[in-house]
Amino acid sequence: MDKLQRAIGVFDSGIGGLSVLQALLERLPSERFIYLGDTARVPYGNKSPETIRCYAKECVQFLLQHEVKAVVVACNTVSATALEEVKSCSSLPVIDMILPAAEQALKLSKQDCIGVIATRATVASGAYEQYLRQRGAGRKLRIFSIACPLFVPLAEEAYGDSEAAQLIAEHYLKPLRQAEIDTLILACTHFPLLRKTIEKVLPGVQLIDCGEQAAQEAKKVLQQATLLGSETQCSSLPRIECYLTDELPTFGAIASKFLGFPLEKIHLAKLEAR
Amino acid sequence: MDKLQRAIGVFDSGIGGLSVLQALLERLPSERFIYLGDTARVPYGNKSPETIRCYAKECVQFLLQHEVKAVVVACNTVSATALEEVKSCSSLPVIDMILPAAEQALKLSKQDCIGVIATRATVASGAYEQYLRQRGAGRKLRIFSIACPLFVPLAEEAYGDSEAAQLIAEHYLKPLRQAEIDTLILACTHFPLLRKTIEKVLPGVQLIDCGEQAAQEAKKVLQQATLLGSETQCSSLPRIECYLTDELPTFGAIASKFLGFPLEKIHLAKLEAR
Repeated sequence: MDKLQRAIGVFDSGIGGLSVLQALLERLPSERFIYLGDTARVPYGNKSPETIRCYAKECVQFLLQHEVKAVVVACNTVSATALEEVKSCSSLPVIDMILPAAEQALKLSKQDCIGVIATRATVASGAYEQYLRQRGAGRKLRIFSIACPLFVPLAEEAYGDSEAAQLIAEHYLKPLRQAEIDTLILACTHFPLLRKTIEKVLPGVQLIDCGEQAAQEAKKVLQQATLLGSETQCSSLPRIECYLTDELPTFGAIASKFLGFPLEKIHLAKLEAR
Repeated sequence: MDKLQRAIGVFDSGIGGLSVLQALLERLPSERFIYLGDTARVPYGNKSPETIRCYAKECVQFLLQHEVKAVVVACNTVSATALEEVKSCSSLPVIDMILPAAEQALKLSKQDCIGVIATRATVASGAYEQYLRQRGAGRKLRIFSIACPLFVPLAEEAYGDSEAAQLIAEHYLKPLRQAEIDTLILACTHFPLLRKTIEKVLPGVQLIDCGEQAAQEAKKVLQQATLLGSETQCSSLPRIECYLTDELPTFGAIASKFLGFPLEKIHLAKLEAR
């Protein structure tokens, strides 16, 4: 197949990456996508860096077998702990979650006081802090990173707007309120589903959606690499091919919630250890 | 090694089985235990029966390689969906979570109105309902099974007694209060960590801890098979050998919470697909 006509590969530990896919669909209307969710081993966020690296490589190999033209790491945990491993698998463009969101935070923050909320693994990696300090060298940045592990199941179980989520958010985000951050990176693809709750707890703080930023970055990268598809191409092929490593009875409903429309068909994927 | 001196194998998807191990330690003071937690793929409760069966077999094979004398399936999800697979791996006695808890519920319930709270996979299997109806044939049983998926992360994140947990419990357990159940099976090994919260939402209801019931059953089974160890044996060997499939930074703290004492050493286990 002509390189331009190939799909963009998108992968995540599970379903959170669908929020990234949604942003990609919007920003890249002429592109096709292959989405892989590793639902047999979800979640990654509380697992060790070694295990996450091993799983991430298997996901990328699967996408490469499907001849994608670029890879979007639609998972902050993988972006934070296994980006080098992902990049080492091929010479294709790789778009991660961290760089675009960090850039946007540096652009928006006026007080140079930035919060990062994420999974335990992402926070432990220090990846956001490292990027922010590197790109914002010379600025007197104050960065506050907080792990919010319960936000993931709350989002998946559609409790993102609940009173319980608000109580948990008040507890988790208290240090950020006290620090008077002006900008907050939602550094987990599940967290946009708690946006309203987070806004209530941190009024006036600018929230950065890493999926939205990554989609803009993907467009830029594809343009630079002259890999952008054109609108007339491949209209006979499905816009999204979705693969999961395990059947997830709740996937259809959650996918509709993230994407705003139902997925037609979901395939079962078998990953190979390497 | 003499068969009596061998350890009892205990496995779970992660850390919930430690509540079962705690009950086993209490009821079987002369026994040694090998505990395996599949933390690289935790949780099982939202995964498909096929995937759970595959993972369960790999866990049992690991315990068999360590020459255990009996297997305790310290996970309701595995007991509900993969018990036959576990039993087919060897001729050793297998103690599951469901039978002992169901027996106790039938013994305690006066109104024959029994609730079961569990993971999505356990509820979907219908295993508790099937056992209860089979063993309680002739009684006019009313059985209400409810999936409480958020209870698992709440327990793991030490939010079991929180106000947020209470709000979620009120939502989940409302149908059980309306049905006026008199007995409730806590059919997930994590749920004893929410006992106080559940008691507040369902006052006067008798709660059945499946780990406690399984430990009593294990003692009975070992006695019948003349496999019980004696107090003078093997005092030089560690009482608990703990294996995890992935390092879990929070494991030590949670283990202390479940067991009431810290675990000395945790080994990394590599499971083999079969």
